[in-house]
Amino acid sequence: MSDLRQRTTAQKEEPKSEPPADEEEGEDAHELTLNANADSLPQASDNTSEAIDSALKDLTPRWRNWIIRGIFSLIMIFSFGGVIWLGPLAVVLLVMVIQIKCFHEIITIGYVVYKSHELPWFRTLSWYFLICSNYFFYGESMIQYFGVLLSRTEFMTPFVTYHRFFSFSLYISGIVAFVLSLVKKHYLKQFTLFGWTHVTLVILVTQSHLIIQNIFEGLIWFLVPVSMIICNDIMAYIFGFFFGRTPLIKLSPKKTWEGFIGGAFSTVVWGLMISYILVQFDFFVCPIEYDMAAESLSLSCERAPVFKLAEYTLPQFVQNLCRTVGIHCNTFTTYPMMLHSIYMSLFASIIGPFGGFFASGFKRAFKIKDFGDTIPGHGGFMDRFDCQLLMATFVHVYHSSFIKAVSPQKLVQQILSLKPEEQLQVFNMLRDGLTQRGLLPIGAQ
Amino acid sequence: MSDLRQRTTAQKEEPKSEPPADEEEGEDAHELTLNANADSLPQASDNTSEAIDSALKDLTPRWRNWIIRGIFSLIMIFSFGGVIWLGPLAVVLLVMVIQIKCFHEIITIGYVVYKSHELPWFRTLSWYFLICSNYFFYGESMIQYFGVLLSRTEFMTPFVTYHRFFSFSLYISGIVAFVLSLVKKHYLKQFTLFGWTHVTLVILVTQSHLIIQNIFEGLIWFLVPVSMIICNDIMAYIFGFFFGRTPLIKLSPKKTWEGFIGGAFSTVVWGLMISYILVQFDFFVCPIEYDMAAESLSLSCERAPVFKLAEYTLPQFVQNLCRTVGIHCNTFTTYPMMLHSIYMSLFASIIGPFGGFFASGFKRAFKIKDFGDTIPGHGGFMDRFDCQLLMATFVHVYHSSFIKAVSPQKLVQQILSLKPEEQLQVFNMLRDGLTQRGLLPIGAQ
Repeated sequence: MSDLRQRTTAQKEEPKSEPPADEEEGEDAHELTLNANADSLPQASDNTSEAIDSALKDLTPRWRNWIIRGIFSLIMIFSFGGVIWLGPLAVVLLVMVIQIKCFHEIITIGYVVYKSHELPWFRTLSWYFLICSNYFFYGESMIQYFGVLLSRTEFMTPFVTYHRFFSFSLYISGIVAFVLSLVKKHYLKQFTLFGWTHVTLVILVTQSHLIIQNIFEGLIWFLVPVSMIICNDIMAYIFGFFFGRTPLIKLSPKKTWEGFIGGAFSTVVWGLMISYILVQFDFFVCPIEYDMAAESLSLSCERAPVFKLAEYTLPQFVQNLCRTVGIHCNTFTTYPMMLHSIYMSLFASIIGPFGGFFASGFKRAFKIKDFGDTIPGHGGFMDRFDCQLLMATFVHVYHSSFIKAVSPQKLVQQILSLKPEEQLQVFNMLRDGLTQRGLLPIGAQ
Repeated sequence: MSDLRQRTTAQKEEPKSEPPADEEEGEDAHELTLNANADSLPQASDNTSEAIDSALKDLTPRWRNWIIRGIFSLIMIFSFGGVIWLGPLAVVLLVMVIQIKCFHEIITIGYVVYKSHELPWFRTLSWYFLICSNYFFYGESMIQYFGVLLSRTEFMTPFVTYHRFFSFSLYISGIVAFVLSLVKKHYLKQFTLFGWTHVTLVILVTQSHLIIQNIFEGLIWFLVPVSMIICNDIMAYIFGFFFGRTPLIKLSPKKTWEGFIGGAFSTVVWGLMISYILVQFDFFVCPIEYDMAAESLSLSCERAPVFKLAEYTLPQFVQNLCRTVGIHCNTFTTYPMMLHSIYMSLFASIIGPFGGFFASGFKRAFKIKDFGDTIPGHGGFMDRFDCQLLMATFVHVYHSSFIKAVSPQKLVQQILSLKPEEQLQVFNMLRDGLTQRGLLPIGAQ
């Protein structure tokens, strides 16, 4: 969402880390102490190669920023397309890389803001906690989807069976190390940074876990929401750039109602288009499952109802409207996914931006303009992915509440992993239950 | 674990909130700003009724504290016994009450330390997030254990089916409200307190969720670990009080190696005793399940293997040792639970105290002596329950890694909640699977 800001000047020509004017007065000692350090953070720049620089030198800063931002947006979108072409596991890896980079950016801010250069172990422990929590969450996903496969290797069996115990032991060791690393005079800083690390972990690791779960449910549950946020970002920026007049929210003074509404409208249209296209391909709609017989990831599936054409009755007033203009329109046929995409677009464009506002407020609290300077014209990774996190959680909850059904296959797989006598026990109980309910003839064995 | 401290003086006679001498020098402006406010926090006192006061007036402060602490320890233990007598659901309620009180204590510290009196909405939002997360976690437990029962009432059905969606909507509303409540000049405080609230939630709500899960697995999984921590607290205090000489850790200068070792030894013995006693009663070992036929909580069960006598072979060197003294001792018979109790005792007395050290460090960071003054002679609830949280998580992970098995009953219940045609599909797939594996005769229908 941070695209809604109209970067009208390239930062090269601004004095770096000049605090926004509206925050000058009224700081207490606490905030000033922190602020004093913020200029050592890497900030966004439009630094690019000299070739591009000289080609753009005659443009006004506003247009130069526009073009650099555009070029790097395209580069990102095409690289992203390449990763998708490589398949779902490459996408999972990409999510992991982005998560690590975002973690790095946020931890660096904490490190600089709290002047923790002399703190023993702080960085090491933060990264250790990141590794622990990823070990736990990635492990959970792997076991959920490839448990049977992993258990085949004797070496891996204990890691599957006792995964939570190992994760817990790793984490507790971190807590013990933290307590032992506490140093007189630094208690307050150390606890502050402990909290800082953990809030970051909750925000990044749990949500990227949900993103990965979405990928496993079928690439469409990842691509549609991600592209919606990108579309909303770009279109809100463009609408804001050309038509922006009315300020939207104090927190992000460069965001406008025109950008907000233009973005929302474009996102709904985009959502319908992209859903319609992706629904056509098994590659996007099939959940990622390991095919035991073929010994590879399965690339086809029995389609879930949400991807099959269905007939809907139109509301009465629409039917009446049709009748007045002489058309017969009682029903229409479409993929249920198309209707779900509307709800997702609305979330992406109405609630999604609050992820961006939250990030803006955070940056203002710590007097920084961007989370980093990784992507020319864009800032850090966190600047680019702030709204993706909220969206991913929404899609995960939406999918598991309204779409996902317990799959009979999964239940059977669970039963067949029990001990033989328990398998028979389940079978007998089930047979009795079904017979009682009249679903099986009484004589059946 | 905070009992290891030997409170040698009643605080009445100390000037309140005098900072510990070893933290006087070397504070930066940030820490001093915070410290200036800490004396408005309620601190532990031995304030009791006048009757007790006058009865104890001739004793030295050290002994007076000992007796007041002792009286209130007994009161707590007996009230706790009463709640257990009322049954598992009363225990669940107790856990909830304690969690809310602990949350209140920690939030109050944040409120005082960061001088957030003028911050709009901060308290309201913190409590709102507490309610959301409890709605989510308690709801998850309720649905997991009583889902079928709850779904019988038509009114409740959507709350069961869409539980996660409702929880998420509540939470997101809180985030939106937080962003909208952001006020220029207070950004830093507001984000700090947002982080403060969330770290508190992660520590308290997730862990009390695990405690409740333990209760549902059978009261023994709650009582044994809780009583171990209490035993370790009391015995470490007593050993420290009478024999304490050697300081254990800088962070808690009043804790001693003598207390630590005495506590550990007593806890192992206590763990064996209490496990042996509780294993005898169905009331303690049966998981809490709703009996659909009897329409009430079931009070009996088929005992899990961990509560049935089993024969163990002794290690070779013990066998040899026996032989040298002329005894035959190849095997011994006991409840597996007894052996598990040893691991739990060791965790309770070796790693458990780190929960207390962590809390001590936290209190020192914010220059407070106790979390509150709720329990005379003890301080706040958090002072008393700091180690219970870590222990509960350990027991949960231990139980789910080494003891819990997927119950055939639960699987059958899951299958019978599918659509009729899916129930039949599972039945047929299962029959084919079992026939293939040779567990069912080929002719069986």
